[in-house]
Amino acid sequence: MMRSHYCGQVDEALLGQEVQLCGWAHRRRDHGGVIFIDLRDREGLVQVVIDPDTAEAFANAERVRSEFVLRVHGRVRPRPDGTDNPNLRSGKIEVLAKGLEILNRAETPPFQMDDEEISEEVRLRYRYLDLRRPVMQERLKLRARTISHFRRYLDAQGFLDIETPMLTKATPEGARDYLVPSRTHPGEFFALPQSPQLFKQLLMMAGFDRYYQIVRCFRDEDLRADRQPEFTQLDIETSFLDEADITGLMEGMIRGAFREVLGVELPEPFPRMAFAEAMSRFGSDKPDLRIPMELTELTDVMKTEEFKVFAAAANQPRGRVAALKVPGGSEKLSRKQIDDYTGFVGRYGAKGLAYIKVNDVSKGREGLQSPIVKNLSDAALEAILARTAAVNGDLVFFGADKAKVVNDALGALRLKIGQDLDMIEGDWAPLWVVDFPMFEWDDGENRWNAMHHPFTSPRDAVETVKADPENAIARAYDMVLNGTEIGGGSIRIHRPEMQTAVFELLGIDEAQAKLKFGFLLDALKFGCPPHGGLAFGIDRLIMLMAGAKSIRDVMAFPKTQTAACLLTDAPAAVDERQLRELNIRLRRTP
Amino acid sequence: MMRSHYCGQVDEALLGQEVQLCGWAHRRRDHGGVIFIDLRDREGLVQVVIDPDTAEAFANAERVRSEFVLRVHGRVRPRPDGTDNPNLRSGKIEVLAKGLEILNRAETPPFQMDDEEISEEVRLRYRYLDLRRPVMQERLKLRARTISHFRRYLDAQGFLDIETPMLTKATPEGARDYLVPSRTHPGEFFALPQSPQLFKQLLMMAGFDRYYQIVRCFRDEDLRADRQPEFTQLDIETSFLDEADITGLMEGMIRGAFREVLGVELPEPFPRMAFAEAMSRFGSDKPDLRIPMELTELTDVMKTEEFKVFAAAANQPRGRVAALKVPGGSEKLSRKQIDDYTGFVGRYGAKGLAYIKVNDVSKGREGLQSPIVKNLSDAALEAILARTAAVNGDLVFFGADKAKVVNDALGALRLKIGQDLDMIEGDWAPLWVVDFPMFEWDDGENRWNAMHHPFTSPRDAVETVKADPENAIARAYDMVLNGTEIGGGSIRIHRPEMQTAVFELLGIDEAQAKLKFGFLLDALKFGCPPHGGLAFGIDRLIMLMAGAKSIRDVMAFPKTQTAACLLTDAPAAVDERQLRELNIRLRRTP
Repeated sequence: MMRSHYCGQVDEALLGQEVQLCGWAHRRRDHGGVIFIDLRDREGLVQVVIDPDTAEAFANAERVRSEFVLRVHGRVRPRPDGTDNPNLRSGKIEVLAKGLEILNRAETPPFQMDDEEISEEVRLRYRYLDLRRPVMQERLKLRARTISHFRRYLDAQGFLDIETPMLTKATPEGARDYLVPSRTHPGEFFALPQSPQLFKQLLMMAGFDRYYQIVRCFRDEDLRADRQPEFTQLDIETSFLDEADITGLMEGMIRGAFREVLGVELPEPFPRMAFAEAMSRFGSDKPDLRIPMELTELTDVMKTEEFKVFAAAANQPRGRVAALKVPGGSEKLSRKQIDDYTGFVGRYGAKGLAYIKVNDVSKGREGLQSPIVKNLSDAALEAILARTAAVNGDLVFFGADKAKVVNDALGALRLKIGQDLDMIEGDWAPLWVVDFPMFEWDDGENRWNAMHHPFTSPRDAVETVKADPENAIARAYDMVLNGTEIGGGSIRIHRPEMQTAVFELLGIDEAQAKLKFGFLLDALKFGCPPHGGLAFGIDRLIMLMAGAKSIRDVMAFPKTQTAACLLTDAPAAVDERQLRELNIRLRRTP
Repeated sequence: MMRSHYCGQVDEALLGQEVQLCGWAHRRRDHGGVIFIDLRDREGLVQVVIDPDTAEAFANAERVRSEFVLRVHGRVRPRPDGTDNPNLRSGKIEVLAKGLEILNRAETPPFQMDDEEISEEVRLRYRYLDLRRPVMQERLKLRARTISHFRRYLDAQGFLDIETPMLTKATPEGARDYLVPSRTHPGEFFALPQSPQLFKQLLMMAGFDRYYQIVRCFRDEDLRADRQPEFTQLDIETSFLDEADITGLMEGMIRGAFREVLGVELPEPFPRMAFAEAMSRFGSDKPDLRIPMELTELTDVMKTEEFKVFAAAANQPRGRVAALKVPGGSEKLSRKQIDDYTGFVGRYGAKGLAYIKVNDVSKGREGLQSPIVKNLSDAALEAILARTAAVNGDLVFFGADKAKVVNDALGALRLKIGQDLDMIEGDWAPLWVVDFPMFEWDDGENRWNAMHHPFTSPRDAVETVKADPENAIARAYDMVLNGTEIGGGSIRIHRPEMQTAVFELLGIDEAQAKLKFGFLLDALKFGCPPHGGLAFGIDRLIMLMAGAKSIRDVMAFPKTQTAACLLTDAPAAVDERQLRELNIRLRRTP
């Protein structure tokens, strides 16, 4: 082989030994008639010294520029006193070259490999150079190591890795599908999967008992926020297990990965919180527990107040009035910040952001500073102070609207203030959120929607669910980490009569159900086992583990916000002949 | 948990113990007032006995029909003397039920799970039932185990599992792409990858050193033979390794999988054979070495014969005359079979199939029976007998045409006769075929084509390749198993000047090259390491390992020959609204 060691693995254990190294010239310095090259490979850097005594190697070294590909052989020796580099594993040694061969040249790259300030456009266009940067190497290595751990864990637990189709049928609900015209069936289209949901349920009906797959999924959404048209899911399904079994297995897997890859011990077991509690305390079904602030319930108190803004919200159906106390907020938050927060909660539909500065609790009403104080009764003010346990210097924000608006607005404000005031405590806060409602009421469409998906099993019997859908609880569970949902799933419906009832409640009639899910309904009739599973969003999980800011930073070849690949220039125009074969034509020439 | 053991794992080690089992009622028999149920899960069958004494269990058991889903708890006891079933791991025991719960009912399935004669259409339509059959369970388990072994091997060797995009750019050469219209870039299309070839080379340029991925690939081909529109590839690329390093690593991986999964020891190392030798001896670049017949070269002998059919073939450029001796063929092959073989070789372009029956070698010309004997000189007949080492009773077939036709026809005939006459010796014959030509002459287009792909490195320097492309040897290697190519790859070109020269020889001009491979040519300029790799066809390999007849039998949800899914009814028509969003319309309504 051309190489005896990776550059980054050469250390004092190899002192005196000969090594063969291959890599890239990260930096070259000429100093005192000697050439120094930092040679880089995926494991790190090593300093190579080329002395004029080794004439051929020296002549070659003189031609070396940044990013030339080199092969070096030489002897490992200690660095001279005082020149150690404690940041490198190889920092105590250097390699005195006996030979140096230029395997390939390089033009001057558009950026240096240790540059931190490169525009994302340049990074994506020259992705093969961007990925040479040590930070990107480490991220993709962390990804590979984590996925490898998942696979080994699941293999050991008897899960079978089974592949499901990519060319499949359009998803009946959910986001927009990517479509693939069929050449052999003119006028018809495959869809790329948004998830293998139905296939994994079919695999349970086929008796495979424990399935997993690390699988690409696709959504043709508008790429707001940090989304990608194709993303990777760890998809899991099991038979004959209940929620406790499944969540136990899964947190064992995540705990193991954190231990093995990051050296971090996560709690055992993960805390569990009901959806209703999460919404009440944090205004979110994926609360970040690292932020020591909670919402305070005031709906009951405000029902009888004269202040219309609060009373109307408290008295409307599905209305809520709640407070968010910011400890020390009177001093820590400027007037400008508070104004900005008013704009911020507006994005979530809140029509304003009332607040009270708590100057001196001993003075009662007089110690509170806010235009709304005069509108509130003594009882209300007392309740606010008592329930929030506010002390002098605190600031209390209020939300009063439909519960959804209050939760979204104060839930987001809680996160924002937590970050702005640097309140985050601890590194990792995993959590299971459970006991989700089966259905959400859709005001616009005036009907029930499935909160998870229409195959989720309710906890109760068919009749109970039909009689009171609003209070039906789903056997669903989400894994939340630091305020991000990293996985979610449920026990599925395994009896045809329950599936039919849920479709009915969702307003999916028999003909629609047959058309969209006919094969699933058929399959339920032939001996479907009780089953359930979940799926993890791998990109987002790895992003959190790697401390990256975007999922693009943990994917080798991501796309831009307009779903394009700057490296290969995809998508691109195609030949008319190809369109003809697929029985399609363009509507307008671009 | 609902279960203490899998059904198929209950054996005499558990005698006297209580077990909890879940599974499907494979068969129910009532005998002597007692009910017997063979309970089935993915690990096998166990016999459950339900006695009328356990009244509730018995009442439930009376309602059980085929494929009902059951939960049973009971005690393991020996079967009565003389009722052992040596075919089952659980064949010496039975479970006396204390409780039996019906978890789900089943309608009468369209076929029994032990039926072997089900039409493929029914199997694919009810795939979730077909997959319950033990033979299908075993195949998919074998697939999962093999893939798991590959991953563990590659992880241990420092390979990084890195994902490449599915929504990518159209492939410049090769088969037809599946296209995906872009909504955000109207009039433009992504293509689904035929392989991640360029991405894996870019990952080497990015310094990842060792990459692998088990990845879905797509080809919109007409599905002759045993092809699928989507198939799975084990894709591998390495830097700083040569052919010997790579093939050594890879055969280690395959040997390990055969050992671990099948308990089979493959030879170490695998034999290696040059392309030229494989074509000469077997008429194939993927010879099945288990068949003890070889082609005999006669081109030189026939050049001076008067017999036009042979002489013309022998004297034309790239012509060949060769023989295939069938030991004992005079008796073993009927006149009808020989006629059928004439038709068979016709499919490969052969215009006829001359043959000689060797009745008595001691009689010279008189001992040979064939219409062509009178056309051949004594010298030619002697050469045929001597070179084929024919003995009495043998039959010798002849091919005379362009070498390609002779090789295709006699190569295929060799396989067919080998199977027809049951000549296959041994179970497993792996082989590396190496030293492929760089280029094949395309008579139709009057130009050179790349035999592998245009990124394959030649063995020689640029000038040598340019001067004599016909004799340029590629640094390519194919892994062949039992006459099937299961993997192939090459050392790639890593210098821009060589890549440009090869493009020129292939008639790809600078503008085309820039358009199609611009990003690769750019990347080559910035310090590309020497690299190479290969890809394995996972479906085909697993098919061979499982002893299945079709790759459809080792895929969970395959498509039909017309690229349709009978289970989900994909592809299907889509809404006009969706087409409008994608800026396409149909040419004609189907």
